[in-house]
Amino acid sequence: MAGTYRYRIGSRDIDASQHARLCTMGDLILGAAGDDADMSGFGVSDLNTGNASWVLSRMAVELRRLPSRGEPVDIHTWVSGYGRLFTTRNMTLAGVGAGGGAGEQFGAAVTLWAMIDLDTRRPLDLSSLSNRAGSLVDREPPVGRPLKVGPVDGVAGSSYTVVYSDIDFNGHVNSMKYLEWMVDTLPAGALAGLSSVRLDINYLHEATLGEALTICPAAAAATDTGVTHRFDIRNASGVSVCRAAIAGSAR
Amino acid sequence: MAGTYRYRIGSRDIDASQHARLCTMGDLILGAAGDDADMSGFGVSDLNTGNASWVLSRMAVELRRLPSRGEPVDIHTWVSGYGRLFTTRNMTLAGVGAGGGAGEQFGAAVTLWAMIDLDTRRPLDLSSLSNRAGSLVDREPPVGRPLKVGPVDGVAGSSYTVVYSDIDFNGHVNSMKYLEWMVDTLPAGALAGLSSVRLDINYLHEATLGEALTICPAAAAATDTGVTHRFDIRNASGVSVCRAAIAGSAR
Repeated sequence: MAGTYRYRIGSRDIDASQHARLCTMGDLILGAAGDDADMSGFGVSDLNTGNASWVLSRMAVELRRLPSRGEPVDIHTWVSGYGRLFTTRNMTLAGVGAGGGAGEQFGAAVTLWAMIDLDTRRPLDLSSLSNRAGSLVDREPPVGRPLKVGPVDGVAGSSYTVVYSDIDFNGHVNSMKYLEWMVDTLPAGALAGLSSVRLDINYLHEATLGEALTICPAAAAATDTGVTHRFDIRNASGVSVCRAAIAGSAR
Repeated sequence: MAGTYRYRIGSRDIDASQHARLCTMGDLILGAAGDDADMSGFGVSDLNTGNASWVLSRMAVELRRLPSRGEPVDIHTWVSGYGRLFTTRNMTLAGVGAGGGAGEQFGAAVTLWAMIDLDTRRPLDLSSLSNRAGSLVDREPPVGRPLKVGPVDGVAGSSYTVVYSDIDFNGHVNSMKYLEWMVDTLPAGALAGLSSVRLDINYLHEATLGEALTICPAAAAATDTGVTHRFDIRNASGVSVCRAAIAGSAR
């Protein structure tokens, strides 16, 4: 369960600065996870036959730049461990060198995944996967593991009702949609001017079609090197469904 | 200016039915247009050096099915003509055969593009492109040219304020976002049950960051073979910025 997958930043992936959006990079990272799981016969399609699926629980992403239009990106990914509830999948992101070989690494990610039963929507015990231990790669995560984002002192901002285009193959809100809603509360270009960014995002509850959500950004907090933005998204019962922190370093 | 580009339906491209969304197919069609223009040295990046860009004016898409997760799709595209204001670019969409060669054609598109000056946002005269006539392919559009969608007797529905994630490389709302907003007014899965679909979409005015838009769907109209949905999206001045008709045939 390790491989390298090449993607190309297309016209749909970029913003007015001609660079990929943070959400696009998340899409590609999750796409590489899916592609590699598929290659190993352990992807969502395989799991669906047993009425199970992978869901993202936490993700950390660090990027030193956002690639530009037309640029190829190689994402190398490997699974480094199984716990009872979560499996850890890692990624490094690199450009492509002049000869088509490996270019400079500009980012990395660590993702934690749970396996759920598609009827009960409850997590399954991954201990039964111990027979797949041979597929683990004994290489440490390339960046700090995804942090738990604690309660966010967020101001209840815009409310939003989940629509068809937000729903993914698991029948719930696409992981990157939450991030999109969060980033869209920032001034446009707030992330473009940064020299590096670290995202920690926690998925706490599912949200489904028609649900009313409230996007709650906290006031930006200055740090030694830049600024941290924290967000909470709550459902109609006031329960947090997704929290995230985006820490940026200024140029 | 003709070529074939292969894409793969990824996890971000599909809905809960595990099939590509209509908007995804639009993204891929526009991506092929961009990729082919880039290959011919006539893409947006090339035009940007002269402070110009391509903008989509009208599009027609016909699809007999929506491809499923992991499926490769070959999009063949060619430019068949220049007018004073518009150039016509065509696409056929096909699966990939068992041996990796051409599979069955399941869709086609015709797109009309204008070239704008990025400062004035006004269309440029394409007559000067007559020296590129040699790059035209003398092959008729594969489906009926994009229809003009007349005034839509739409009910003012949800209002929406344009955010960062809606903005594309031209600094205005991404063409497929309008379609997403339209489709999202339909019951989820309204298009999934169709045996074929034809989209005609007209882009009438630019919309930019922060603009307030109103999505106005008309009541669904029954036809001999299925149903037609018509939509209008209006800006704060009540001006139509985008209109579309989606005609579906029932199975």
